[in-house]
Amino acid sequence: MASSSSLTLSQAILSRPAIPRHGSALHPHPSSTSSALPSFSGLKSTSSSTVSRRRAAAAAITRLPVRASAAVETLEKTTDTELIEKSVNTIRFLAIDAVEKANSGHPGLPMGCAPMGHLLYDEVMRYNPKNPYWFNRDRFVLSAGHGCMLQYALLHLAGYDAVKEEDLKSFRQWGSKTPGHPENFETPGVEVTTGPLGQGIANAVGLALAEKHLAARYNKPDSEIVDHYTYCILGDGCQMEGISNEACSLAGHWGLGKLIAFYDDNHISIDGDTEIAFTENVDTRFEALGWHVIWVKNGNTGYDEIRAAIKEAQSVTDKPTLIKVTTTIGFGSPNKANSYSVHGSALGSKEVEATRQNLGWPYEPFHVPDDVKSHWSRHTAEGAAFEAEWNAKFAEYSKKYPEEAAELKSIINGEFPAGWEKALPTYTPESPADATRNLSQQNLNALVKVLPGLIGGSADLASSNMTLLKTFGDFQKNTPEERNVRFGVREHGMGAICNGIALHSPGFVPYCATFFVFTDYMRAAMRISALSEAGVIYVMTHDSIGLGEDGPTHQPIEHLASFRAMPNILMLRPADGNETAGAYKVAVVNRKRPSVLALSRQKLPQLPGTSIEGVEKGGYIISDNSSGNKPDVILIGTGSELEIAAKAADELRKEGKAVRVVSFVSWELFDDQSDEYKESVLPASVTARVSIEAATTFGWDKIVGSKGKAIGIDRFGASAPAGKIYQEFGITAEAVIAAAKELC
Amino acid sequence: MASSSSLTLSQAILSRPAIPRHGSALHPHPSSTSSALPSFSGLKSTSSSTVSRRRAAAAAITRLPVRASAAVETLEKTTDTELIEKSVNTIRFLAIDAVEKANSGHPGLPMGCAPMGHLLYDEVMRYNPKNPYWFNRDRFVLSAGHGCMLQYALLHLAGYDAVKEEDLKSFRQWGSKTPGHPENFETPGVEVTTGPLGQGIANAVGLALAEKHLAARYNKPDSEIVDHYTYCILGDGCQMEGISNEACSLAGHWGLGKLIAFYDDNHISIDGDTEIAFTENVDTRFEALGWHVIWVKNGNTGYDEIRAAIKEAQSVTDKPTLIKVTTTIGFGSPNKANSYSVHGSALGSKEVEATRQNLGWPYEPFHVPDDVKSHWSRHTAEGAAFEAEWNAKFAEYSKKYPEEAAELKSIINGEFPAGWEKALPTYTPESPADATRNLSQQNLNALVKVLPGLIGGSADLASSNMTLLKTFGDFQKNTPEERNVRFGVREHGMGAICNGIALHSPGFVPYCATFFVFTDYMRAAMRISALSEAGVIYVMTHDSIGLGEDGPTHQPIEHLASFRAMPNILMLRPADGNETAGAYKVAVVNRKRPSVLALSRQKLPQLPGTSIEGVEKGGYIISDNSSGNKPDVILIGTGSELEIAAKAADELRKEGKAVRVVSFVSWELFDDQSDEYKESVLPASVTARVSIEAATTFGWDKIVGSKGKAIGIDRFGASAPAGKIYQEFGITAEAVIAAAKELC
Repeated sequence: MASSSSLTLSQAILSRPAIPRHGSALHPHPSSTSSALPSFSGLKSTSSSTVSRRRAAAAAITRLPVRASAAVETLEKTTDTELIEKSVNTIRFLAIDAVEKANSGHPGLPMGCAPMGHLLYDEVMRYNPKNPYWFNRDRFVLSAGHGCMLQYALLHLAGYDAVKEEDLKSFRQWGSKTPGHPENFETPGVEVTTGPLGQGIANAVGLALAEKHLAARYNKPDSEIVDHYTYCILGDGCQMEGISNEACSLAGHWGLGKLIAFYDDNHISIDGDTEIAFTENVDTRFEALGWHVIWVKNGNTGYDEIRAAIKEAQSVTDKPTLIKVTTTIGFGSPNKANSYSVHGSALGSKEVEATRQNLGWPYEPFHVPDDVKSHWSRHTAEGAAFEAEWNAKFAEYSKKYPEEAAELKSIINGEFPAGWEKALPTYTPESPADATRNLSQQNLNALVKVLPGLIGGSADLASSNMTLLKTFGDFQKNTPEERNVRFGVREHGMGAICNGIALHSPGFVPYCATFFVFTDYMRAAMRISALSEAGVIYVMTHDSIGLGEDGPTHQPIEHLASFRAMPNILMLRPADGNETAGAYKVAVVNRKRPSVLALSRQKLPQLPGTSIEGVEKGGYIISDNSSGNKPDVILIGTGSELEIAAKAADELRKEGKAVRVVSFVSWELFDDQSDEYKESVLPASVTARVSIEAATTFGWDKIVGSKGKAIGIDRFGASAPAGKIYQEFGITAEAVIAAAKELC
Repeated sequence: MASSSSLTLSQAILSRPAIPRHGSALHPHPSSTSSALPSFSGLKSTSSSTVSRRRAAAAAITRLPVRASAAVETLEKTTDTELIEKSVNTIRFLAIDAVEKANSGHPGLPMGCAPMGHLLYDEVMRYNPKNPYWFNRDRFVLSAGHGCMLQYALLHLAGYDAVKEEDLKSFRQWGSKTPGHPENFETPGVEVTTGPLGQGIANAVGLALAEKHLAARYNKPDSEIVDHYTYCILGDGCQMEGISNEACSLAGHWGLGKLIAFYDDNHISIDGDTEIAFTENVDTRFEALGWHVIWVKNGNTGYDEIRAAIKEAQSVTDKPTLIKVTTTIGFGSPNKANSYSVHGSALGSKEVEATRQNLGWPYEPFHVPDDVKSHWSRHTAEGAAFEAEWNAKFAEYSKKYPEEAAELKSIINGEFPAGWEKALPTYTPESPADATRNLSQQNLNALVKVLPGLIGGSADLASSNMTLLKTFGDFQKNTPEERNVRFGVREHGMGAICNGIALHSPGFVPYCATFFVFTDYMRAAMRISALSEAGVIYVMTHDSIGLGEDGPTHQPIEHLASFRAMPNILMLRPADGNETAGAYKVAVVNRKRPSVLALSRQKLPQLPGTSIEGVEKGGYIISDNSSGNKPDVILIGTGSELEIAAKAADELRKEGKAVRVVSFVSWELFDDQSDEYKESVLPASVTARVSIEAATTFGWDKIVGSKGKAIGIDRFGASAPAGKIYQEFGITAEAVIAAAKELC
């Protein structure tokens, strides 16, 4: 009958012919070649990379003995790139030696990816090793984070202060700057925290989004003040993870032309050859995702092919590029290359020796040969010049465009405009009842007027999460200056992209949204927000059974507890307008601690006693008819159940009880308060405590104590109108009153 | 320079020409046409679908007035398929009416997908409505679970007892069989629980894997005893989720030829046109994943095209098939079709009336016209005949192949061979110290010999998680009878695939593995295991800072607490060999409650006092020198820290203290015990309690009480050798001793 359309394109993927060696040295940055921009004359007169690269090439006259391993491709000695090979082998052996000394780590990737790593850090990228935070630097992300010794070796050679020889020698040791996976909060020069696979490529999409957005907002015809690339290396593992497909689909959709990802195609994953679980056509998939795809067949020694691929990638400005680089994992190891055994453990002294023999490496462990050292030394001056040049450019820009410069500066240095918090809306008990998701939108729309770095969106639930910024359009391929990001139904990618945005520049305040229950889809990215100190704001609506009919698949139960248990994240569950504003104040202020805002679908009254200041303390009294810090009972609620606690208090007070009502909007913030403050809210002597929260009671024993009572839901939810579920599950004022009466 | 290889294949995707109407009636099941198999003579003589379909076609002589909506494609009345259209409109209006009555729900998908739904349940699928659990039924998964009224309407028409008219009328109400998303545990006939997007297609991959596996193990040249299709409908939302790419990549790799997925290509997601976030080429992506792809351009009325596509899909036996069916969301609604507004809320009485007018539907809400009812009524007899025929076949099979039949029966009915638990290994304190991940592997390899349904694997960490079944090979495309599944680095897909396997047949015992910290990647699937009562065993190794150098990205901290907070899941953290065996016993027995086993990377001693029976109680005494249930102090540990508690007890006892050591291996199991038992382990009068666990202390207050002390880690981990981190973080016997001395 009908013919099959299952065509494959593998044969259509063209390999790239090598470009002539030592053609013009690759100066990768388009701004330096663009006629629309002032040329880097200042730079060229001091330490042009073109000049220094030529010098290096001229100096490379002695061939080192390099023997091809039986297990790997024969080294084709068709180029006089000895110094490069020496540098590449330096990288390989720094990785080998560090892993050997630690007797722990992953030598395979650095050995295979050293060539592309060398070219990136030595020839392609622009950075200032003495100021790893220089704004306009090219970003590099090692998505295959286990290969971190590649990055540490490169940072070391490039002259970053964080990675001295002694740091390499203390690889994976307590307190070192060289932990087992790249951690931005430990090692200046590392942009993001990777290791959990797929996160890095999604972070890279966020970094590239940030660049494209800022460039669109701030570049002028006479000044391309924002202008950098984002490079990434990802492996087979990253490619298999769903998050990478999510993020790369968006990168293609957004046309992130300055995102260049190297796919380390080594055919080996931990369980062996990728044949056993990964036989899809990655090239075709990326083309389907809207990427430009290039295949470098010889990633082990094909320096010119890699250079040509990068040049081609840079020339494609409307699409991100995937450069598939076929490499040999553990290249150079005669007995372990191209096998799993070289992936994740030390080679062992015998194989280290064999590899030294094989690659002709006569040096002591951790030795960087003088000519290699000398070759790399120019990056310090070059990097300083890059930054100085940019600073001069920015000074000029500031004169011409003072408003834009002030905004951009705020994004660059993370200092918000004075008095920004005055933009937060305030409410009185007379303000209309409203869902906290709607109140959240009022806050977002107020904040976007005063925070230049606020940008974000939802995973296809903007109209449910109420996250649209009404004064802005959509961030899209052709409107990248806009600030509503449409993530599609891609929660995991969304979270990791926001991590990338947050870590691009300290003044970015990215937010992202979905239903609270679907934090389960993005938890790995949220954990990395917390770990890597990325102050993402997670706008999580439909935060309980209060969403009603959608039922248990959509009703969070254990989610509040699960984030309260996570280090360095703020879990906030505001009860009304003032508390929602307070939650936003906290979230914006905490740039190194992500915030999760749990917000209601249903309307909630504006409660007397709530305040922004209260929220900042995490737990506080909203009403109290007791004296001497001795209430008969303390009722504690959060979010939509604070109203229930307040109602129960009204009833109990009518019966003559001294009742305190405490809003416990953020456990973490309360934990941060002084003992005196805590005692003033929850006096140790008052053990009659009742908490109410439409969620698991897990964890509440800490707050209500052994003699208190936690009212909650220790089962999955149900599909029914919200009011009915509240009744059936006993999340009611009556239940609070009954529990309180039992206790006092 | 080199030419771009970014070709797109969109133009190469051929549309399928309509096949001639009323060609031979589509009898979809290959077994009924295969010459190698006995034909269904018994069936044909009673109620052959071929015969009944012909009858139905002959009866369909009157055209109903159908008016094309301005908003949708013109209905082409080129076929005399009136009764089918009437049935399709019945489905549409049952969905419309139920959503309208509930004033909540999603009418758009059922209205758009009614044609494919009708064809599947009326012409294609084999099932027995009076026994939804008949083993050899075709499986259907509505991955776009929000469209559940489609499935409820189909189950209703097909004669399933779970969905009577009154059930449709109580859609989304408390206690109904028709919750807001499909829930297998509420509605017999629903195979899996969907709603969270992307889960369903991954479940479908698991169901198809299960079929392929069982067919390979049990089919004989003269008896194809396992032989069914898995059908799935997924939407744009599912397609965007990373989990679907993970699962579909595996489906292509495994060549699951009997998986047929309908992609409801309606170009609308909640935020509007998919153009705003989803412009990738899905067809090409699926071809890259190894699928056969067919495009049905007219999914609204192209019955013959849909039939032809299904036939083609069935003919492709070495690849799964994606049938992209272009539909109009909310088809038939004159003012809301093809827009977001019809996706997730009731049409409103005015638009319902307009839609009735537009589609020429004169009936009352919830009415099924007599001819439609009559047409569908044959499925009861037909389904009974399908099952009877299969039962007869299985009786014959059992005579010829008694061993295989007994195994298969065990998988079908979930009754394990008597005495299976005797296979569990036992240990004494003299047994060598070992990591619980290694002990876990001993259990898996022991259990696979006695549990025919044990099957599973790891997300590319088999050699780290220690999950290989040594007596079996790999489940692969051409060796589907094997039982080691290679999931690749696809944790989320892995979990959801295991849910599909578990829910295929009650005797399946699927297990899957990764590092414990990476449960963050698959938490959404694990939650659905718990909610949908899928007894998956999650083998989670490297369960604490004890993994050492890989650092905080790999060290779980909050994960134990996060699962203890989740309903209906068992979190088990065994301390040694006997406890690991006990954990497996519990995990195997609990077929409706998934188990998470947290296992150590590092070696642990075999402790005196541990036992399988103890584990079954969740918390139990492993040593005690007190009397009268009045120890001076109770030390409580789990997993690798139980050893530390035991050491501390030894020291304290030397100093004359009466010390009880409690292993608290599973909080949930302990919760299930009687109050008497709990009091015998943790007497209320003993408030001097110290817990130690290398994880967050969150939640431990419940166990140690306000006066006790919980020793744990309330921060992220660190990269260093494990022993060093234990010391630095104070997870030591010294810390336990000091805390105990403060308390008693």
